[in-house]
Amino acid sequence: MLSTATLLYALDLAGTFVFALSGAVAGVKNRLDLFGVLVLSFAAANTGGITRDVLIGAVPPGAVSDWHYLGVSVVAGLATFFFPTRIVRQRSAVMLFDAAGLALFAVTGAGKALAHGLNPVMATLLGMLTGIGGGIARDMLLAQVPSVLRADLYAVAALAGATVVVTAAALQLPATPAAVAGAGLCFGLRVLAIKHGWQLPVAGEPPEPPARHD
Amino acid sequence: MLSTATLLYALDLAGTFVFALSGAVAGVKNRLDLFGVLVLSFAAANTGGITRDVLIGAVPPGAVSDWHYLGVSVVAGLATFFFPTRIVRQRSAVMLFDAAGLALFAVTGAGKALAHGLNPVMATLLGMLTGIGGGIARDMLLAQVPSVLRADLYAVAALAGATVVVTAAALQLPATPAAVAGAGLCFGLRVLAIKHGWQLPVAGEPPEPPARHD
Amino acid sequence: MLSTATLLYALDLAGTFVFALSGAVAGVKNRLDLFGVLVLSFAAANTGGITRDVLIGAVPPGAVSDWHYLGVSVVAGLATFFFPTRIVRQRSAVMLFDAAGLALFAVTGAGKALAHGLNPVMATLLGMLTGIGGGIARDMLLAQVPSVLRADLYAVAALAGATVVVTAAALQLPATPAAVAGAGLCFGLRVLAIKHGWQLPVAGEPPEPPARHD
Repeated sequence: MLSTATLLYALDLAGTFVFALSGAVAGVKNRLDLFGVLVLSFAAANTGGITRDVLIGAVPPGAVSDWHYLGVSVVAGLATFFFPTRIVRQRSAVMLFDAAGLALFAVTGAGKALAHGLNPVMATLLGMLTGIGGGIARDMLLAQVPSVLRADLYAVAALAGATVVVTAAALQLPATPAAVAGAGLCFGLRVLAIKHGWQLPVAGEPPEPPARHD
Repeated sequence: MLSTATLLYALDLAGTFVFALSGAVAGVKNRLDLFGVLVLSFAAANTGGITRDVLIGAVPPGAVSDWHYLGVSVVAGLATFFFPTRIVRQRSAVMLFDAAGLALFAVTGAGKALAHGLNPVMATLLGMLTGIGGGIARDMLLAQVPSVLRADLYAVAALAGATVVVTAAALQLPATPAAVAGAGLCFGLRVLAIKHGWQLPVAGEPPEPPARHD
Repeated sequence: MLSTATLLYALDLAGTFVFALSGAVAGVKNRLDLFGVLVLSFAAANTGGITRDVLIGAVPPGAVSDWHYLGVSVVAGLATFFFPTRIVRQRSAVMLFDAAGLALFAVTGAGKALAHGLNPVMATLLGMLTGIGGGIARDMLLAQVPSVLRADLYAVAALAGATVVVTAAALQLPATPAAVAGAGLCFGLRVLAIKHGWQLPVAGEPPEPPARHD
């Protein structure tokens, strides 16, 4: 039987794979060369976790000391590079997997931050960062404003999932069911947001008064 | 009576607040959603200090281990998001506070780098980085060239303030008056630069010869 | 006679100088002010090594604890700022030096990562990152897609050089000849790629099906 650690590791690599797909698709769309597509695969899949690890002092970060994260990212990048139309046709499947990756990264990221002694508020934030950091790096490498800063409900889903994990830990509830519940909440929120087009508000008034027309 | 440490901490949070305002205003102007505005608030206020702490090995950085920095950033972001016209109308007040934040961050940043054993030259540079890093992150998240790289005298003011602190430490002069003098110099330079439109030079000749017109 | 360490240090500073030139030229071309040009000099020359050091836990990074890297970067930046046409006229010399800097950084970066206990695959990757990280930072600060993600054979040359060093270490071959061979391979590949315009492929098919024209 699989141990919990093995299962978590397998899920972590699965999340890495789907996030790497999102990076590679963005790279192909922006006409990067093969190397650029692989860089975007790796960055989209691993920047969130690497940033979290650097911030909590867990160096070298997991994605740097363990080459499996690189391997999985490269496989996703090569698959996208050589069969881009097939990957893109699976768009809704990729979005589902991406929601699963987000859920998993938010939950495991918050757990790791707690384990390194961070306070509950910042552990929640680092959980969210683990989930959204890769997408931010992907978009910044393409010289674009990160879509998470203005697109639909994405970071909030990650925040909700991380909050469940951290709250359960504060209440000394068992960790595994809390992780499952947090991941389920994040995944559910994200899928509902895609389905219903849920958005966060944008500030209603322009910050500068309109020019007068006399 | 307030202790020096309490006073410094209060000033640090005040600097965080005004820098967060500058991030939030930029986010509202660029039509980010509520989450995006909060990310820009936090990034503009805390990236300089976080980068300094990561570089000198002080992890987790203050802005990650202490949730008050997040709290102050979120309050500034919410205020800007819901009352953008009011914040923008206070434009000259915000610029004054921003100059004060720059002065404070440059001085405390240089002091912290010295305390971690950096040599005087690099401690000065890290003081400046503490002051300008947040604005660079804010602009990069908006896919813009950081304004500090081509706008008016901003980094130079931070550099001057940090230099005073580091020089005083090298001469074994007392730290508190040096910090006050450094912050005053930075603040004064910055305010004068805004008032008089002082700029750094741009390279005079184009780096490529003009095309010939035969 | 020069010791090996002194020679390596001198070569490292030489690589820093030529990379700083590339940053400064990009800054002048994009009409940054004097400070912006100096920031681009430093970032282009040192971000690769700084990122590597942060990731392997070698803080403060060499380019932060030792002010010579800053000094060399500033000299390159000032030379470019005040004599831009002369620097640009030396374009092919700068490209040769840049190839030499890439070779050196890739080889020393991989060696440093190995010395910090990284596994061979990731040490190779960090060697490459040491070589290309500065150019990525330079382009991102200018709000441009990093040229290494879509330009000619650049990262691959760095990867080849780092691979030689890491493979030799795995086979317990002597380090110095391996470093020379790795640097030579990287330099040769890069020069040939420039001369012959070698490129990596771009994904052949567009990732989205063309719109139907009824």
